[in-house]
Amino acid sequence: MLTDERAPDKRDDSSRFNLMNETELAFAAIAEIAHLFRSGKLSPVELTELILARIERFNPKLNAYITVTDELARRQAKKAEAELGVRGKRKTRTDRGLLHGIPLSLKDNICTEGIRTTAGSKILRDYFPERDAPVVTRLKQAGGVLLGKTNMHEFAYGVTNNNPHYGPARNPWDTKRIPGGSSGGSAAAVATGLCFGSIGTDTGGSIRIPAALCGIVGLKPGLGRVDVTGVIPLSVTHDCVGPLARTAVDARILFRAIAYGGDGKGEGVRQRRSIARKLSNIRLGIPREFFFEVISGEVKKGFEIAVGSVRALGAKIKEVSIPLLTQTEKAGNRIAWAEASQYHQQSGWFPGRGAEYGEDVRSRLEMGMKILAVEYLEAMDQRRSFISQLRVVVEKDAIDALIVPTAPIAAPLIGEETTRVGKDDHATRALLLRLNRPANLAGVPAISLPCGFTAAGLPIGLQFIGAERNEQVLLDIADIYQRSNPFRMPPNLRD
Amino acid sequence: MLTDERAPDKRDDSSRFNLMNETELAFAAIAEIAHLFRSGKLSPVELTELILARIERFNPKLNAYITVTDELARRQAKKAEAELGVRGKRKTRTDRGLLHGIPLSLKDNICTEGIRTTAGSKILRDYFPERDAPVVTRLKQAGGVLLGKTNMHEFAYGVTNNNPHYGPARNPWDTKRIPGGSSGGSAAAVATGLCFGSIGTDTGGSIRIPAALCGIVGLKPGLGRVDVTGVIPLSVTHDCVGPLARTAVDARILFRAIAYGGDGKGEGVRQRRSIARKLSNIRLGIPREFFFEVISGEVKKGFEIAVGSVRALGAKIKEVSIPLLTQTEKAGNRIAWAEASQYHQQSGWFPGRGAEYGEDVRSRLEMGMKILAVEYLEAMDQRRSFISQLRVVVEKDAIDALIVPTAPIAAPLIGEETTRVGKDDHATRALLLRLNRPANLAGVPAISLPCGFTAAGLPIGLQFIGAERNEQVLLDIADIYQRSNPFRMPPNLRD
Repeated sequence: MLTDERAPDKRDDSSRFNLMNETELAFAAIAEIAHLFRSGKLSPVELTELILARIERFNPKLNAYITVTDELARRQAKKAEAELGVRGKRKTRTDRGLLHGIPLSLKDNICTEGIRTTAGSKILRDYFPERDAPVVTRLKQAGGVLLGKTNMHEFAYGVTNNNPHYGPARNPWDTKRIPGGSSGGSAAAVATGLCFGSIGTDTGGSIRIPAALCGIVGLKPGLGRVDVTGVIPLSVTHDCVGPLARTAVDARILFRAIAYGGDGKGEGVRQRRSIARKLSNIRLGIPREFFFEVISGEVKKGFEIAVGSVRALGAKIKEVSIPLLTQTEKAGNRIAWAEASQYHQQSGWFPGRGAEYGEDVRSRLEMGMKILAVEYLEAMDQRRSFISQLRVVVEKDAIDALIVPTAPIAAPLIGEETTRVGKDDHATRALLLRLNRPANLAGVPAISLPCGFTAAGLPIGLQFIGAERNEQVLLDIADIYQRSNPFRMPPNLRD
Repeated sequence: MLTDERAPDKRDDSSRFNLMNETELAFAAIAEIAHLFRSGKLSPVELTELILARIERFNPKLNAYITVTDELARRQAKKAEAELGVRGKRKTRTDRGLLHGIPLSLKDNICTEGIRTTAGSKILRDYFPERDAPVVTRLKQAGGVLLGKTNMHEFAYGVTNNNPHYGPARNPWDTKRIPGGSSGGSAAAVATGLCFGSIGTDTGGSIRIPAALCGIVGLKPGLGRVDVTGVIPLSVTHDCVGPLARTAVDARILFRAIAYGGDGKGEGVRQRRSIARKLSNIRLGIPREFFFEVISGEVKKGFEIAVGSVRALGAKIKEVSIPLLTQTEKAGNRIAWAEASQYHQQSGWFPGRGAEYGEDVRSRLEMGMKILAVEYLEAMDQRRSFISQLRVVVEKDAIDALIVPTAPIAAPLIGEETTRVGKDDHATRALLLRLNRPANLAGVPAISLPCGFTAAGLPIGLQFIGAERNEQVLLDIADIYQRSNPFRMPPNLRD
């Protein structure tokens, strides 16, 4: 159980480090921890032990981790400690930057050398990759401490994270509810201080949906920005790897490490403009079409309040028209389903080992097998048309990003198959996906960040979709928004 | 009938222009004509009238042209004459380069403003495009004179040019035989002096096959090298636009004009190395696999003699192994068929207007509709693997090009559905295609040039497949080869 965990609101910076209790440490910003390491007030080993203890305590409730790599974490923490030279040895030997010694987690579809990588599946239950994915290599080079591999929707092919093989991951705001998926374990772990950040994957919203449902930040980078080699594929023309974190500041540190191979200090990062504490240089578009056709009243209201905040921060906001948005759902599904089925067929798993898949994934793989090449190619044509139209609108109106909701509903119950929105029941899966796919289809970056709560206390997600392939402007916007709308810690977990 | 047409063998350069008869003029090199224009010995109008008269005389036998644009040709010739300032007005006003005033033809799937563009189909029987394809604009800028639009396999979707709507184009070496396709009309016209060069398209061999079967040169440029906008698509990931000509020298002039928008003088052309009269800098590979599995004895012998010539010219030739070549036939078909069906479906023609297609094209479009997305994607994977393997071999052995036959047989009879090779009957269409698809699949350039004749007097085609995206080295090789193995004029046509 998470007990007595309340984020201190206004803290006195000069004295806070001495006053932080264990919970505060677990929820501290990465830069704060980095400072504590270097000032000798905390060691990577201490912090790692603290977080491992939290995992032991809270993971049974959340099922956020499939595999906890405690031995590896302790080894890496010790190495970081030696390199950073904390505790007595004040002279720093090797400083790998902000992520040095920071406990992190990885979604379990990212290959880790010698560490089981299940992709949430039964088929890969005993898969121990021979090599790290390049993204893992980069985190290691940045000195990150790997706590473990997080729970996910089977093969990343779904958004509930109701995993039939490893059990459902649970939403820390209400454990009867899903954390969203497919990177649900990552989001639950980040939201509850079971790691300082996590790397997930996003093919149709799999980073942003759990970020929204768990009240954290999730960045889907532009297509191709982060190397997807060594990540079990879902849909190769959509798959992206990106960070989940409690704040845009932390997300940026993780993103820099994986996208540019940097040390978290920001070298190689293109900063489009310098943004201070205001959004007055930012122009945002609210699409007239698609995004508000099916949306719960509470999410709509939360979104409108957020738009008000963003406007108050100085951003120019205008309605834009992108009619082809209405094609993105069908086109995106066709492409993703066909590509997923082809990968599973080519791997020799489907249909041969069909019985080893969960019901929902198997039925989607079956659907994907039936898609015709002409349908796939038509969808690819629609994709190109959509990208062109988006580009025209963005250029005409000089838009930096679209501002939209991440999901039209808050976290559904585990097992909920249909969700009522207004007067109609909708397939829950389709609801969660629909506002996310456009960014995947277009290949542009998108970020989700928390923007308030429903009456039942469930987080609502605000999404910014980048008008161009520039993640930094999204992180800038999210950062400024979060200064007045900070991350909130989930309430106590109850039995 | 073509009568008394024999290419003079050794001519005295100093006096030849005065001695050329009409037939010699019709078969002269583009550069020779360009010189005659500028020396005042011939005018574009005279030459155009000469070729139009030949078209009137010989086209009924060959059916090489679907549309003759005699009025336009006369207008363009007059304009060229005015610009070049020949006959009395010696002062040149505007010299657009080597193609200025040269009578050319275009395959009828290349859109021409206000000129019927049938793509060899009934469906586009009355299609008068509103705009020129960019490739046409470039030829116009280079001062080319457009004689007309050439016959082709319906929608470029076949290799026989046995067109059910406009009649078969015929092989000038034996009019009972096919010229090959789909750019069959272009090849027949070039081979018989009914134009000085033609622009065709090549998706699976449609430039090289008719070039081989008619005894001329056909260059398929690398994918994307020449703008395909305004060309009726067949398979968008394969389609290329390129020249057919009697010599590599002429093909290069045409290629420069369409690929670089130049004036035929060669600006903007990357020349990888300078090659004189020898091939001693050239390394060629003969693939161990695929190319010689099914091949007629006469073509094999012709090829071996050609290899001997090439070696005698100084080229290093070695065997190479590219095992994935064996996948190219099936993978190429799947991709091309699916993409073709998608285009025809999206255009609203198929299946709705299925009855308006020729039997063979309709049945291929039906096949394409049935291809599954997973099959298409598997073929695309195989394509990528093949490209990688080709690249590795090429780099390892420092190969400039592969040397292979263009087609395993010489021109079949019109209506021939199966052809015996060795002890087995093979589908004629598949035979003609199979050695051409690898270059389309890989996206590399390839050239076909004549390399001798069968006992029945039918041309044999020699193919060089570029190891990298460098058309110039192929044109260099072909040019040097042709100096000792020149173009030969087809024999007299008989009633």
